[in-house]
Amino acid sequence: MNHLIGPTFGGGPPRTRAQSRPLEGYFFEDFAPGRRFVHATPRTLTAGDASLYIALTGARQPLNCSEPLARAMGHRACPIDDLLVFNIAFGKTVADISYNAVANLGYADVRFLAPVYAGDTLACESEVIGAKENTNGKTGVVYVRSEATNQEGVAVLSWIRWVMVRKRSSATTAMGSVPELPSEVPAASLRVPQWLSARALTARVTGSSRTWEDYAPGSSIDHPGGMTVEESDHMLATRLYQNTARIHFDVHAVKRIGFDKRLVYGGHVISLCRALAYDGLENVVAIAAIHGGAHVHPTFAGDTLYCRHVVVARDALPGRNDLGALRLRMIGAKDVDLAQLPAIAPGEKNPSVVLDLDYSVVISRRQSA
Amino acid sequence: MNHLIGPTFGGGPPRTRAQSRPLEGYFFEDFAPGRRFVHATPRTLTAGDASLYIALTGARQPLNCSEPLARAMGHRACPIDDLLVFNIAFGKTVADISYNAVANLGYADVRFLAPVYAGDTLACESEVIGAKENTNGKTGVVYVRSEATNQEGVAVLSWIRWVMVRKRSSATTAMGSVPELPSEVPAASLRVPQWLSARALTARVTGSSRTWEDYAPGSSIDHPGGMTVEESDHMLATRLYQNTARIHFDVHAVKRIGFDKRLVYGGHVISLCRALAYDGLENVVAIAAIHGGAHVHPTFAGDTLYCRHVVVARDALPGRNDLGALRLRMIGAKDVDLAQLPAIAPGEKNPSVVLDLDYSVVISRRQSA
Amino acid sequence: MNHLIGPTFGGGPPRTRAQSRPLEGYFFEDFAPGRRFVHATPRTLTAGDASLYIALTGARQPLNCSEPLARAMGHRACPIDDLLVFNIAFGKTVADISYNAVANLGYADVRFLAPVYAGDTLACESEVIGAKENTNGKTGVVYVRSEATNQEGVAVLSWIRWVMVRKRSSATTAMGSVPELPSEVPAASLRVPQWLSARALTARVTGSSRTWEDYAPGSSIDHPGGMTVEESDHMLATRLYQNTARIHFDVHAVKRIGFDKRLVYGGHVISLCRALAYDGLENVVAIAAIHGGAHVHPTFAGDTLYCRHVVVARDALPGRNDLGALRLRMIGAKDVDLAQLPAIAPGEKNPSVVLDLDYSVVISRRQSA
Repeated sequence: MNHLIGPTFGGGPPRTRAQSRPLEGYFFEDFAPGRRFVHATPRTLTAGDASLYIALTGARQPLNCSEPLARAMGHRACPIDDLLVFNIAFGKTVADISYNAVANLGYADVRFLAPVYAGDTLACESEVIGAKENTNGKTGVVYVRSEATNQEGVAVLSWIRWVMVRKRSSATTAMGSVPELPSEVPAASLRVPQWLSARALTARVTGSSRTWEDYAPGSSIDHPGGMTVEESDHMLATRLYQNTARIHFDVHAVKRIGFDKRLVYGGHVISLCRALAYDGLENVVAIAAIHGGAHVHPTFAGDTLYCRHVVVARDALPGRNDLGALRLRMIGAKDVDLAQLPAIAPGEKNPSVVLDLDYSVVISRRQSA
Repeated sequence: MNHLIGPTFGGGPPRTRAQSRPLEGYFFEDFAPGRRFVHATPRTLTAGDASLYIALTGARQPLNCSEPLARAMGHRACPIDDLLVFNIAFGKTVADISYNAVANLGYADVRFLAPVYAGDTLACESEVIGAKENTNGKTGVVYVRSEATNQEGVAVLSWIRWVMVRKRSSATTAMGSVPELPSEVPAASLRVPQWLSARALTARVTGSSRTWEDYAPGSSIDHPGGMTVEESDHMLATRLYQNTARIHFDVHAVKRIGFDKRLVYGGHVISLCRALAYDGLENVVAIAAIHGGAHVHPTFAGDTLYCRHVVVARDALPGRNDLGALRLRMIGAKDVDLAQLPAIAPGEKNPSVVLDLDYSVVISRRQSA
Repeated sequence: MNHLIGPTFGGGPPRTRAQSRPLEGYFFEDFAPGRRFVHATPRTLTAGDASLYIALTGARQPLNCSEPLARAMGHRACPIDDLLVFNIAFGKTVADISYNAVANLGYADVRFLAPVYAGDTLACESEVIGAKENTNGKTGVVYVRSEATNQEGVAVLSWIRWVMVRKRSSATTAMGSVPELPSEVPAASLRVPQWLSARALTARVTGSSRTWEDYAPGSSIDHPGGMTVEESDHMLATRLYQNTARIHFDVHAVKRIGFDKRLVYGGHVISLCRALAYDGLENVVAIAAIHGGAHVHPTFAGDTLYCRHVVVARDALPGRNDLGALRLRMIGAKDVDLAQLPAIAPGEKNPSVVLDLDYSVVISRRQSA
């Protein structure tokens, strides 16, 4: 059989037309620092995506559900859920960056820069900012900064992630650059639109009058809901995000790399925890930044997810007395009674914990009469 | 660990800010007759919701699918399926009313008051109209009237339901009020828009020329289709409705209250039966009222649903010769050959029957040449 | 019990009002050549349908995802995915044509005639073009030509299919007409809009610069992805298509006809294979025709689908130097390593192969500088 482009395609000689992604994806050797990738399939977000996101996660933030509320707060329409934007932008990078990833190791400097609305079209580019071969000679760690822009070229999201990627061959490379990663997005640089007003976000629409002032650093919230994950659910979500990583979809590919079951895409775990956390964080208006975090253990269909938040810090936002920032730790745990889960120190691993995310949200402050 | 609001939150002293729903939900003691709840998360319905509803149920009523038909009948666009409106409105009440419900006992006086279109925003309020402690001291029955309005404040749906709710403590209460419940929505008060015309609803678009005249009281229809329910299906639907009752989502919470499997939300069972009933009730234009009904037995993933309708009465609609009302009993049964299912007397329980609903639809009448 | 219309309805005397489809569907005897069917439920397609289709299949063709790209190519908006149009049009015919089908035997002369956009309303009619009783006396083969039109009456899709349908009674019929079926849609009659421009379809948006010139007849592509199918996934899709065939939904009905599990609707298998084939066929702009093909073996939940394409021919399109046609064989296989799957001769059966489709796509040609 004469294969035009087939299973052996990725292993052949260097491509002459750089823009054609090899069918088998890129390997560690391909990620020279400074290399840029323009990711395929720009995507116009629609009300259909927003609706599916509610069905997939159970999200209930009123700002993403009610057009009159969104307009009363200064938006021109309901903004698309921040995490749907994140997951769709992330999804675009997978075919280029993490198709041959063994693990998604971490996030840093994730900045939500501008709201996205139905009708906006997202495109995404990435640049390799570091690559270091592992001593085992089989894999390496690739550091990438990615940016998603809308149809007007305005950046809506930028982030760094690093992944462990398989090498194409056993030949040793000289790649050993590790970038300096910011440990946080400073509160002063959190982006909140000037025109955004929290005045309309009352307890009548959110179900709660808990505001910024009520979240004392060091306190924690065990959110009451739980969500048992099904194969169809996470695959529908991950396809909606156009994330093509085989590990989420193909039981045979999954077994070849040593797992029994398809893995749930980590970004969807974040989305499910965020939705569970609505009860207790009702007046959150937006996610402003993800400082760092990791998928501590994998999640599989059949697992039931729960969410705890720990309040890390309460930051004022310059020039605003209606909105403040909360720095939070989102702890996603599975198959555990949160009441029995001890406090988890930062960096501490607990077998029940699947997600440990350090991030900042914008939340309404108490309104003076 | 210093819990800001956590698992023990619901058991604490009375809230000072009444609008903050306790994370663990309200208990029987909280439902003093006359108390009002403004439910969270107003929701703008979209074409995405309508599309998902088709995918989740297989609904095929042409009026909800074809814009040209909807306009030819006088609507300004495709109306949102009545049961999608019902389920989304119902979903809003759950966090306040039935989060700690043991069972959803019944419906009365459900009135579909105005059509809802993509772009309309639904909000929902409820008032406690009765509450009676059970003799076991552990639970009580709460009666609630709820109303959903659109962004112009027009009521689109109102209904009474009663639920069995757990008590917070074992202390006996004085609550013993049971409201008088209407046994039906009188045919004369069924709401049909003046401008609605059935002229365009021909057999070419519905697949059938069976009209109001063909449905003889006492006759019945065993609809031919069946639908095997999956966990993902009912959870996607129930999340789309933003119904947060744990019993539908969390296998561990489900086991703690004595079930083996997640329960399928009853409103979705009604939706599935309605979709199966398209074949045989093709010219139904709208649901006008639900007089009463109950979820006789629970439905679980793996069950296959079938639907029988019994024609109870044929009511003329004042001033209309193109449309009439049919009062129907919708019997939802599972894992049974309907041909083998005997006639079920009103109120009679049969182990195969999961749903017994007494309701009225608007259907086209025979058109004179 | 007095059945108005029930399980025995289909077996009764001839209907006087021909437009009412019998609840039990039509049988072989009903398909006299020349008989026409106007299928129920015209459907306005929406952005919600497009979004669901991405979630159900993982489709990534940029033309169907990006409004700016679609406009730059001359479309007035993102066209609806050709196979979503096909599956929805096909779905409309099921209740009339294949409700009592034993097997969907084949397709011929499938022509994609005009793009469909969100907001367009599809309606569908069919004509019986042949019917031949089988010698077993229990079934017969029915040949049907169907056509889907938009709200302006413009034909957007036409196709022939033939199905094996059960007879109502054992009485022998005189039906023995087999139509002459075209073996292909000639390349010269493939419909490509004059205004369509491929100029904007660059490697930046598709991820590949592989164009028409790169696909040598005789070569093949083993697409790298795989998709494990779940019950919820295929049922959601098939309900979205409003395809009511019981074999996809009702485990009891499925067992009565000798299967263990619900069958995955064949059209959805085509959709999944098409989505997998994005990697390797990135610059395909549209499906122009399906010449023929068959669902060689059934697909069930739990199966993992893979896709191979064989390039059959490269056809120039009259008057176009920016677009060409490729005639392709789409081979869908399950639970097999494609690298181990031998070349399959046309018509050859292989136990791993579920789909063998002969079709033509429009793809961009190399752009001169």
